[in-house]
Amino acid sequence: MNADAKKSVLRMIPYGIYVLTADDGRGNICAATVNWVTQSAFAPPLVVVGVKTDSGSYKTVKAAGKFALNMLGKDQKSLAFTFFRPADVTDGKLSGQPYRKGATGAPILIDAPGAVECKVTSIVEQGDHHVVVGEVIEAHFNRPLTGRPDAAILEMKDLGDNVFYGG
Amino acid sequence: MNADAKKSVLRMIPYGIYVLTADDGRGNICAATVNWVTQSAFAPPLVVVGVKTDSGSYKTVKAAGKFALNMLGKDQKSLAFTFFRPADVTDGKLSGQPYRKGATGAPILIDAPGAVECKVTSIVEQGDHHVVVGEVIEAHFNRPLTGRPDAAILEMKDLGDNVFYGG
Repeated sequence: MNADAKKSVLRMIPYGIYVLTADDGRGNICAATVNWVTQSAFAPPLVVVGVKTDSGSYKTVKAAGKFALNMLGKDQKSLAFTFFRPADVTDGKLSGQPYRKGATGAPILIDAPGAVECKVTSIVEQGDHHVVVGEVIEAHFNRPLTGRPDAAILEMKDLGDNVFYGG
Repeated sequence: MNADAKKSVLRMIPYGIYVLTADDGRGNICAATVNWVTQSAFAPPLVVVGVKTDSGSYKTVKAAGKFALNMLGKDQKSLAFTFFRPADVTDGKLSGQPYRKGATGAPILIDAPGAVECKVTSIVEQGDHHVVVGEVIEAHFNRPLTGRPDAAILEMKDLGDNVFYGG
């Protein structure tokens, strides 16, 4: 296989930018910027997230058995970079961001336009990131959207001309 | 859960448009437009596709144990609609489109800018679409791209103002 072709063709997949959060109920709260996300079924509504296995987020999501995906808005590039770094909770904020606990206990970022909360139904333990499958059990709209929902989300290509995570 | 919120928040996920193809070696060739796709690992390179369980494509991909994802280009909206319909092979063309057999036997659309070929490593049998996990074993660039690869792919929002598959 030609490695350059593999990289370039895989980088054709467009990605939105999400903050994956979870709370395992034992003092561990995670929040990390992710992009390997897709819906995978309508009934029940399932989503799939590729999560780095050596990350704190993977450990916390697995222990919690639940997670939230906070959708970042087109204008929230700085939030994407905030959650590339390890998250901390100080003065009731998550890395400086206001949040509330969702139905799953996972932090819901108040400034993100929307979020879904999921219970983990399956994990495919293959590769350096595992495939976490979650059933959507709650959805939040934090502020109204105008136009298509998929035009309102921050995308990988909005992060910088040479920013990619994939390939 | 508020059904409208769930639908709108899930529709924030941006999607590229792909033609999923496979050949089971027993006379069954499939080709279907899909959009629920993400990479899920770098090493090995894994991709995930949500495939409708009652479709001929699902049956053929499962029997073949291999598949290709043909990335459609920004200008190939009509091809997306071609492969919404059941595919047929006539005069050596796939629903009228020129193709060649890839390393996996799956049809590679010559007019698509690129494709990856995968062997199925896992299927999560949950929901009305199953999560097909594939390891990328071959990649094809059929024509050069200019600019970001993820700006060159046809996207769901290019298909029409009210076209969605998700939510």
